[in-house]
Amino acid sequence: MLDRSVRQLDHIGIAVSDLEKSLVFYKEILRLPFLGFETVEREKVRIAFFELGGCKLELLQATSPDSPIASFIKKRGEGIHHLAFKSKNMEEDFVFMEEKGIRVIGDGPKLGAGGQFIHFLDPKLTHGVLIELCEPAPDHK
Amino acid sequence: MLDRSVRQLDHIGIAVSDLEKSLVFYKEILRLPFLGFETVEREKVRIAFFELGGCKLELLQATSPDSPIASFIKKRGEGIHHLAFKSKNMEEDFVFMEEKGIRVIGDGPKLGAGGQFIHFLDPKLTHGVLIELCEPAPDHK
Repeated sequence: MLDRSVRQLDHIGIAVSDLEKSLVFYKEILRLPFLGFETVEREKVRIAFFELGGCKLELLQATSPDSPIASFIKKRGEGIHHLAFKSKNMEEDFVFMEEKGIRVIGDGPKLGAGGQFIHFLDPKLTHGVLIELCEPAPDHK
Repeated sequence: MLDRSVRQLDHIGIAVSDLEKSLVFYKEILRLPFLGFETVEREKVRIAFFELGGCKLELLQATSPDSPIASFIKKRGEGIHHLAFKSKNMEEDFVFMEEKGIRVIGDGPKLGAGGQFIHFLDPKLTHGVLIELCEPAPDHK
């Protein structure tokens, strides 16, 4: 039975060309608490995390020209890349989305930043918004 | 003295071509609680509000071809339009941004959706992210 409680926002992902330069705005101008950096080799991305009062803001910089973040910036410029929502049961969510005709990109959940299993929904079916679902991996729960 | 507590996300604004069509995804697939509609004539936009656990998600549809939402969709297609952060003192925030060289679009705060004073920061200075600051108007506090 799918959990029907209010779905929480986990984080907002923002594609940036230069992490150090963009940091200044979020840290000093918007004054969000800075939480640290993480590099996710598999996704070819380096991330700066900020606390946003209940959720996080992630600045994402490509570590390679064939990173999805590099492709996004090449096509659309810097900007908001994705919204990530918490999943309480990734497998059930996965089956539910497929049943509703919302294709999941890739072969299923994979390990992303912050020790979370993640998957992305096809933005063609979500009106142009790239949506990630994420659930802490057992070791991080 | 500027308030240094964690800045809260107020809402995420998403530009859509057809409010009724996009509603289905957020209501039935993502299962966010739907809060209602509002039309803001001044901004030439009709909005559908969803609860997001501490903040809101707003779907924005243009009510006129010269709406900022229509221009955005024409240029970039449907997608995430802006992030809105709560301001505890709009005038202080306004002065602080100007001092830091972050230009505010327009002549100052104006009345937006949900009885809030809003202003937008120039996205050229915020690495491609359109950022709104908002504060409830006195009648709505």
